[in-house]
Amino acid sequence: MSALAKPVARLIDEFSRLPGVGPKTASRLTFYLLRAPSEQAEALAEALRDLKANLVFCRECFNISETSVCSICADERRDRGVICVVEEPLDVLAIERTGDYKGLYHVLHGAISPMDGVGPGDLRINELIERLRRQLAQEVILATNPNMEGDATAMYLATLLRPLGVNITRLGRGLPVGGDLEYADEMTLARALEGRRQF
Amino acid sequence: MSALAKPVARLIDEFSRLPGVGPKTASRLTFYLLRAPSEQAEALAEALRDLKANLVFCRECFNISETSVCSICADERRDRGVICVVEEPLDVLAIERTGDYKGLYHVLHGAISPMDGVGPGDLRINELIERLRRQLAQEVILATNPNMEGDATAMYLATLLRPLGVNITRLGRGLPVGGDLEYADEMTLARALEGRRQF
Repeated sequence: MSALAKPVARLIDEFSRLPGVGPKTASRLTFYLLRAPSEQAEALAEALRDLKANLVFCRECFNISETSVCSICADERRDRGVICVVEEPLDVLAIERTGDYKGLYHVLHGAISPMDGVGPGDLRINELIERLRRQLAQEVILATNPNMEGDATAMYLATLLRPLGVNITRLGRGLPVGGDLEYADEMTLARALEGRRQF
Repeated sequence: MSALAKPVARLIDEFSRLPGVGPKTASRLTFYLLRAPSEQAEALAEALRDLKANLVFCRECFNISETSVCSICADERRDRGVICVVEEPLDVLAIERTGDYKGLYHVLHGAISPMDGVGPGDLRINELIERLRRQLAQEVILATNPNMEGDATAMYLATLLRPLGVNITRLGRGLPVGGDLEYADEMTLARALEGRRQF
């Protein structure tokens, strides 16, 4: 559009490429930055440039890390007997936030999804097997997402890991805390019934 | 948090500083960029860096421009007899999108708001008066926002401009197109009644 200066249009375009950011949000952000002190746009630009420059995958758990072994794997206080397998680095964060887990992690970087062309070979599954051969773990928690792809991945992993003689668990299913029974979908409610416990 | 690599935490922080972006959205965007090709983060960083470097205010209308006179002011086909006064560059864009306006603009860069410490001196009002003395305009459309600050600014401008003998108009008020009468607030409905026209 002729009314729009090129650098403005370009930043709107780049913001629009982010997931969940539409053209309206993109132009709101752009015009906000136009009015904000230059340092803010600069700081964001620099954070973007440095994002990948200083990052590697932890050679143990494949979480994103600044060092070849991440801070969790390097932490002597963590329980080396439990490995929690998750799909993404964000999942590590979510579990860490509970403050309840003291074991280690293994990040698969995805889930098996034939629809999206993601097979077991695209995930860090071989690395998990090798790790379990090297490291004596009593328990592997399969904490993939509670959806079709996550369940398929967990099923696949369980078959692979069973011969290694490790105890395999999966995260509990049921009603979310603070949720409302009335609004729970039938699948969740069915799983909650299935997983009921002695009171 | 120890589980988070510093460059990741930093980008999440910077995204969170943008208006309407919470910590959840910020980490979603960050992890999206971590998985996307490096070029995307690079392109966004570059667009951010170039945003202000190549921009000036048009010396006529004070819209954001790459040249000292913006493309609208430089366009010979625009009607120089009408000047539409708006608060922000985004408003120019909104009016241009209608395709119905062929006159020029004047961007105030804000509205009078004593609560936020914005007085007439902080806006491009003197420049508008000077421009109207220099340039023969038949009509000035006061297209400030239909809220308290916008109305106050329009009122102030009307008092200032009246002695110049120019025709002063304000954008029509009423029901938004595609809106639902049932859901219209009483102020809008009152203005719609007030502004009713012969059918």
